[in-house]
Amino acid sequence: MKTNPGNFFEDFRLGQEIRHATPRTITAGDVSLATAIYGSRFALQSADSFARAAGYPASPVDDILLFNIVFGKTVPDVSLNAVANLGYAGARFLRPVYPGDTVSAVSEVIGLKANASGKTGIVYVRTQGTNDRGEAVLDYNRWVMVQKRDPAAPNPPEHVPELPKAVAPALLGEGCPELDPTGWDDGLAGSAHRFGDYAAGERIDHVDGATIEEAEHQLATRLYQNTAKVHFDAHAAKDTRFGKRLIYGGHIIATARALSFNGLGNACRVAAINGGRHVSPSFAGDTIYAWSEILETAELPGRADLGALRVRTIATKNQPCGDCPGREGDGYHPAVVLELDYWVLMIR
Amino acid sequence: MKTNPGNFFEDFRLGQEIRHATPRTITAGDVSLATAIYGSRFALQSADSFARAAGYPASPVDDILLFNIVFGKTVPDVSLNAVANLGYAGARFLRPVYPGDTVSAVSEVIGLKANASGKTGIVYVRTQGTNDRGEAVLDYNRWVMVQKRDPAAPNPPEHVPELPKAVAPALLGEGCPELDPTGWDDGLAGSAHRFGDYAAGERIDHVDGATIEEAEHQLATRLYQNTAKVHFDAHAAKDTRFGKRLIYGGHIIATARALSFNGLGNACRVAAINGGRHVSPSFAGDTIYAWSEILETAELPGRADLGALRVRTIATKNQPCGDCPGREGDGYHPAVVLELDYWVLMIR
Amino acid sequence: MKTNPGNFFEDFRLGQEIRHATPRTITAGDVSLATAIYGSRFALQSADSFARAAGYPASPVDDILLFNIVFGKTVPDVSLNAVANLGYAGARFLRPVYPGDTVSAVSEVIGLKANASGKTGIVYVRTQGTNDRGEAVLDYNRWVMVQKRDPAAPNPPEHVPELPKAVAPALLGEGCPELDPTGWDDGLAGSAHRFGDYAAGERIDHVDGATIEEAEHQLATRLYQNTAKVHFDAHAAKDTRFGKRLIYGGHIIATARALSFNGLGNACRVAAINGGRHVSPSFAGDTIYAWSEILETAELPGRADLGALRVRTIATKNQPCGDCPGREGDGYHPAVVLELDYWVLMIR
Repeated sequence: MKTNPGNFFEDFRLGQEIRHATPRTITAGDVSLATAIYGSRFALQSADSFARAAGYPASPVDDILLFNIVFGKTVPDVSLNAVANLGYAGARFLRPVYPGDTVSAVSEVIGLKANASGKTGIVYVRTQGTNDRGEAVLDYNRWVMVQKRDPAAPNPPEHVPELPKAVAPALLGEGCPELDPTGWDDGLAGSAHRFGDYAAGERIDHVDGATIEEAEHQLATRLYQNTAKVHFDAHAAKDTRFGKRLIYGGHIIATARALSFNGLGNACRVAAINGGRHVSPSFAGDTIYAWSEILETAELPGRADLGALRVRTIATKNQPCGDCPGREGDGYHPAVVLELDYWVLMIR
Repeated sequence: MKTNPGNFFEDFRLGQEIRHATPRTITAGDVSLATAIYGSRFALQSADSFARAAGYPASPVDDILLFNIVFGKTVPDVSLNAVANLGYAGARFLRPVYPGDTVSAVSEVIGLKANASGKTGIVYVRTQGTNDRGEAVLDYNRWVMVQKRDPAAPNPPEHVPELPKAVAPALLGEGCPELDPTGWDDGLAGSAHRFGDYAAGERIDHVDGATIEEAEHQLATRLYQNTAKVHFDAHAAKDTRFGKRLIYGGHIIATARALSFNGLGNACRVAAINGGRHVSPSFAGDTIYAWSEILETAELPGRADLGALRVRTIATKNQPCGDCPGREGDGYHPAVVLELDYWVLMIR
Repeated sequence: MKTNPGNFFEDFRLGQEIRHATPRTITAGDVSLATAIYGSRFALQSADSFARAAGYPASPVDDILLFNIVFGKTVPDVSLNAVANLGYAGARFLRPVYPGDTVSAVSEVIGLKANASGKTGIVYVRTQGTNDRGEAVLDYNRWVMVQKRDPAAPNPPEHVPELPKAVAPALLGEGCPELDPTGWDDGLAGSAHRFGDYAAGERIDHVDGATIEEAEHQLATRLYQNTAKVHFDAHAAKDTRFGKRLIYGGHIIATARALSFNGLGNACRVAAINGGRHVSPSFAGDTIYAWSEILETAELPGRADLGALRVRTIATKNQPCGDCPGREGDGYHPAVVLELDYWVLMIR
C-alpha cells in the first residue's frame, strides 16, 4: 500500500526509534504567519534590533512555533490513529532557532499501556527536534491514546515510564544566551515588570479574547505540516461525536501564549513545558480567554541575567477569566480547554 | 496590576511623549501576507527587478502596510479605550522601508478636548515611525475619541491643534528616490497612464469588489500587532451596539488602495495622507468597492521624474461605485465606509 | 478609460504577443503561505538541507505554486471576461525557481474559434514564464471561453491549434538537476516507494479530505495576484448562476497535488501537465478528496537518477475516493471537480 495508514497501538514496540519525515527549514515567512495567526507581541521575537541589544545574534523563532512544527512531524507516525492527546511532560527548549535553520524530529517509544477495553492503548514517546547542525533544539515527552487495529491482537507488556512532574530550574536556560539586563529595554518590550515583580500565588487575568475561525486554525495546523484529519475534514467530521472539525491543541497553546503577553510581557522565552492537558475540545467560533497563576519563582544557578517563573496558564472558551475558572474537584470548570504548566524566562 | 488597561482620557497630558512598545523587523513574510490579504499588483512593490530598473535598490515595502504596522504600535497606549477613530491629517511617508528594516513608533500628545457629555474626550497625537538607523520613515497625526475612566474627573485645559488640511507638494517625494522614467516599463507596471494623463476633476470607478472574511481582517490586524479588542472578540461583541466584530479601519484603507490599482496602476507610492474618515463601520461579509476623484495634480519642485496626484478615494460596502456615491449634504451616501484624501506619486 | 475592462473575444488576433504586467519576486514568504494553505509535505520543497543532499543548491519553489503565480499574470489580459477555463496542454516546468527569483509572463495567441451561438469564442494561448535572467521556467498552453463584447462583431478566421496530447518523456527532466539517489533519504522524504515500485494501471486513493474556507481560497488566489472577479465578489455573485464565489481552479490543482503526497511522497517534482479539466465548480465548504491512477511509467533518456510517472489525478468534492470515482460514459461521476493528467519525477 502506497498511502500511510498510520500506526495502531499494536504496531509500537518499547524502545522503538522513529525517524520522522519532512525536515523543515523555518523561515521569516513562517514567523510572519505565526504573527498574523496569533498576534504575538513579545519583542524578542518581533525585532532583530531588540534581540541584538539583548544579546541574541538575531530575533529567535517563537518557542511554541518551534514546538508545533516539531510536533507536526511526529503526527503521521505517532498519532494518526489517536483517540486523544493525553499529556506532555519534560519539554525542554534547548537552543534558540533562527530563520534559515532546518529542524527534523526523531522519537523513541518509552512506554506502552493497553486499556482495559482492549480497543485502545496509551503510547508514550520522547521526541527530539534537531537542527541541521545536529544540535538538539527541543526535547519532550507526550502520551496519546491510540486505537488498536484489532482488539483481539495481543498487547505488549505494560510499561509506564517515570516522567518528571516538572523540569528542574538547573536545567532551564540552556536555550537562552547570556543577556544584558541593561540592554533590555522595558519600554520597547512592553512591560515594566521584571522577574522580581512576580510572586508565587499571584494570579493574572490576561483579559483579551480571541475568536478562532476555521481558516485560521487550518492555516496554522498546515503550517506545522500536521496531517491529523480531524482538523481538516468537515465532511468526515459530520459522522463524528462532535459533528465538526476539532481545533489542534497546539493552536490553543499558541493562542494562550500570545494572550499571556498581557501581564507577562517580559516572559521572553519558554524554557520548558512541565505538563499540559487539553481538557476540553475547541471549535471554530469559540473565543479563547486565558489567565495565569505563578506557581513558583526560581533563580537560575550561576546566572544573574534571567530568572524563571513557573506558570500555570488556563485557557477557556467563551468565558472571560476575571474569576480565574480552573480546577473544580477532580475535574475542571466546564469552560476550561487547556491547562499548561511551564517555565518562562524573564529578565532580572 | 500586570496587565495593560490602556489609557483613559484623563491619563493624557499635552506634550506627553509616548515611546511605544514592540519594535518590528518587517520581512518578506510580511510582504507576502499583505499580497495574499489584499492582492495588490503595484509592480514596484511586487518585483525587485522592476524596482531596480526604476531606481530603487530593491522592492520597497507597501506604504499602507508600513502605516498599519506603525499604527498598530500606538494602539495599546493611545486607543485601547477608544470609542471611535475620528481622523487623520498630515501623514507623510518620509523614506522607503525594505525587508529587513526594523520600525519603532513614538507619539506626542498634541491636543486634548473633553466632550460636553463628560464621558469621553478627544486625544490628538502626532506619531513618528523610525527605522533602526534612527531615520524617520513615517510621520502622521490622528485623533480619537477616548473614554474617561471617571466622568467626574477634572478635564485638562482644552487644546485643539492646528493641523494641515493637506500636505504641500513641496513636502512630497522625500520618500521616493530619483526615478528613471525611461527605466519605468508601463507594460510591466500594468498601466499605460502616466502623470500627464490625469486631470483634476476626473473620476475613476475601480470596479472590483472584495468580500472580507473574519479570518482575513483578523490575520491582517494581528499582522500589524494591533490589539484593539473590537476586532477579535466575538463573544464580547455580542453585547456591543453592532453585536459582532468590527473590521479595523486600516484594513479598509489597505483594501481600497489595492482596489485603486485598477485605474491608478502607476500610482506607485503613497506620499502622504491628508485626511481620512472611517465614515461607517465594516463587518465580515461586506463587499468593499471603491472609486476615486483626482482632486489636484502637482509637479514636484525640482523633479522631472515624478508628479503628484491628490486623490480622494471613497470606499463603499455592498454598493458598486459606477455612480460614485459620496458626500450627501452634511453626510454621506449610506454605503460609504471610508473617505481618504491622499497624495500619490506617479511617473511622468 | 483608466481601468482595465479586459479583452473580449474579438480583441484577440492570431499571433498576437501579450507581455503581461506585474513581475513578481517569489520569496520565502510565498513558500510559507503556500505551506499554510495547502499543507504540502514534499521534502524537497520543505527543507534546504534535504534539497542540497539531493543535488539542488537550495529548496526549490513548489511547481504548482510557480504555475499559479505565472497563470495569475495572464488573467487581466486573457480571462477577465472568460466564461469558462476549458483546458490545458503541454505545460512544461523547464527550470527550478528559488526564493529571490523574479518571474514574468508573456503569452502568444495561438488559436481562435468563435462559438456557433455568436456570444462567445475560444481563445488559445501559449504562455511562457521567465525568470529575471531571461531563462524560461514554465511553458504551457491553455484555452478559455471568452465573451464577445458585441455578438454582431465579425469573427476572426477559425484556427484551432494542434496541441500535444502529452509531453514526451524525452522532454521531461530539463527542469530537474542531476540528483544523487544515494543522497535521497526515503525516511526523511516520507515515502519508501521509488520509481520502480509503481506500475501502469495502479490506483491510489489519497484518503485525506480538505475542507476549503472562503478566506483560504481568496488568500491563495490573491497571493497569485489573480484578479478574476468571480473568486472575490460575493455581492456580485448573488446574481450569478451559482449565487456565490467560485473557487479558482488552480487552487483545486494545488490542493490535489498536496493531497497526493499520501501515496506519491517521492514524486518530488511536477515535470509537465499534459492536460487538465475543471469538470465541476467548487465552493467554500466543499471538502476535496483525490485519487490517482498511474497511466504510464517512463525512463528519462540518458538519466539514471529519476524516472517519470504519468499520473491522472481526479479530485472530488464531498466524496471520498475509495471507489475511485471518475469518468462515466462521456462525462464524469457528479462529484468530480478536476481531472489532471501530468508527469511527475521520482527518484530511482
